[in-house]
Amino acid sequence: MRRIKMIISYDGSGFEGYQIQPKGRTVQQELEAALAVIHKGTAVRVSASGRTDAGVHASGQVIHFDTSLGIPDGRWAMALNTRLPADIRVLHAEEVSGSFHARFSAEGKTYRYIWELADVPSPFRRHFASPSRGQAPDIGKMEAGAAHLIGTHDFTSFCSAKTDVEDKVRTVEAIRFEQRGDELHMMITGSGFLYNMVRIIAGTLWAVGTGLLDPDAVPEILAARDRAKAGKTAPPQGLYLEKVRYGD
Amino acid sequence: MRRIKMIISYDGSGFEGYQIQPKGRTVQQELEAALAVIHKGTAVRVSASGRTDAGVHASGQVIHFDTSLGIPDGRWAMALNTRLPADIRVLHAEEVSGSFHARFSAEGKTYRYIWELADVPSPFRRHFASPSRGQAPDIGKMEAGAAHLIGTHDFTSFCSAKTDVEDKVRTVEAIRFEQRGDELHMMITGSGFLYNMVRIIAGTLWAVGTGLLDPDAVPEILAARDRAKAGKTAPPQGLYLEKVRYGD
Repeated sequence: MRRIKMIISYDGSGFEGYQIQPKGRTVQQELEAALAVIHKGTAVRVSASGRTDAGVHASGQVIHFDTSLGIPDGRWAMALNTRLPADIRVLHAEEVSGSFHARFSAEGKTYRYIWELADVPSPFRRHFASPSRGQAPDIGKMEAGAAHLIGTHDFTSFCSAKTDVEDKVRTVEAIRFEQRGDELHMMITGSGFLYNMVRIIAGTLWAVGTGLLDPDAVPEILAARDRAKAGKTAPPQGLYLEKVRYGD
Repeated sequence: MRRIKMIISYDGSGFEGYQIQPKGRTVQQELEAALAVIHKGTAVRVSASGRTDAGVHASGQVIHFDTSLGIPDGRWAMALNTRLPADIRVLHAEEVSGSFHARFSAEGKTYRYIWELADVPSPFRRHFASPSRGQAPDIGKMEAGAAHLIGTHDFTSFCSAKTDVEDKVRTVEAIRFEQRGDELHMMITGSGFLYNMVRIIAGTLWAVGTGLLDPDAVPEILAARDRAKAGKTAPPQGLYLEKVRYGD
């Protein structure tokens, strides 16, 4: 058996999330269906770096699977893309060692969160950015609030209550903001993220940027270890899983 | 009665085109349904600068309608946007004289055509740009081909056979190309356009850019007055009605 690692991109707006579930279309289901065709009906189980929620996008999700086929690295992308729906694309494929695991080998992730800064939200961006509803955030304040999140902290306040994970200590390595035309982008990199953590950070920093919260309230929110103290969970359509980092 | 002019934007991917038809969702139908609600059930007929086909977008379509309501100019956009689906947005509204007509007062139009220049088409752009299928066009050749179209010509070769219009003479004022990241944009302005004219021009200039046609073949195509001599009709998802020009 060979292990294949792939970088994939998907438009999350037509999916009930990445992971297979009893009801609704998922990315994993489409990937496994396409792989089953290539493998003449043999089921192939796909492992991803992590789930993404309904409506959340990926520009650089990483998956792996094992195969008995001898398809060369350079042919895998086209082999799958001709069988996948157009809202999922394989960008890159390569054979890796059997010790590689898309989830357990991951050393860090980068997410991007996009707000559209427009009085009237563009019909073209409604699935791809979070509307600002006419608010103009102070990016300097968002950066000041974000600075308090850098480092290793207990992120209980920034984690959905719907989780089984006990250890809520994570390391956020960097949060960067960039205005691009009428969009505000937030790039966040960390060792790992809790359930809804990026969206709660985005919602909290948006509250800071729009004056609902003071930047200096962020350390208190962290210390409280109480989800209710942080801001709203920002909507899924602004979120993109952009990169998964692995060791060399 | 007051006449209201509006600039609207829509994502064409969920519509069977602008104009009401027996089957399928249309932009006009959604506009008239929202206006009927505001007018307590009274039907309001909307006139547009022209139709757009299924899948074609608008960033600056212009419509007008007559109303007995005294809603101020600055309130119309929100009044409609709260009742319209998110794939149509009103960008601007103003009261105009009763002699204004969205179609008959129009003096010119600008369309934009977008190709995505990528080996693997992005899942995020599949409804919003035309895929290049790995081809890298020579933009200089496209500009050379386009130069032959500028001016007043009989555009029979660049018009769908499915039309009742007899006079096929139109004036193309400008065609400009711009590379933006991994996208190629073509902006075309003219006094008026025949059915499918922009998409046939886009398809023909793409054939010139990718070496299927010589730039100097364009005058012969024009002279032939034969749709079969021009290139393919480029796909609808790359096309945007960007601006309608009116006299002062």
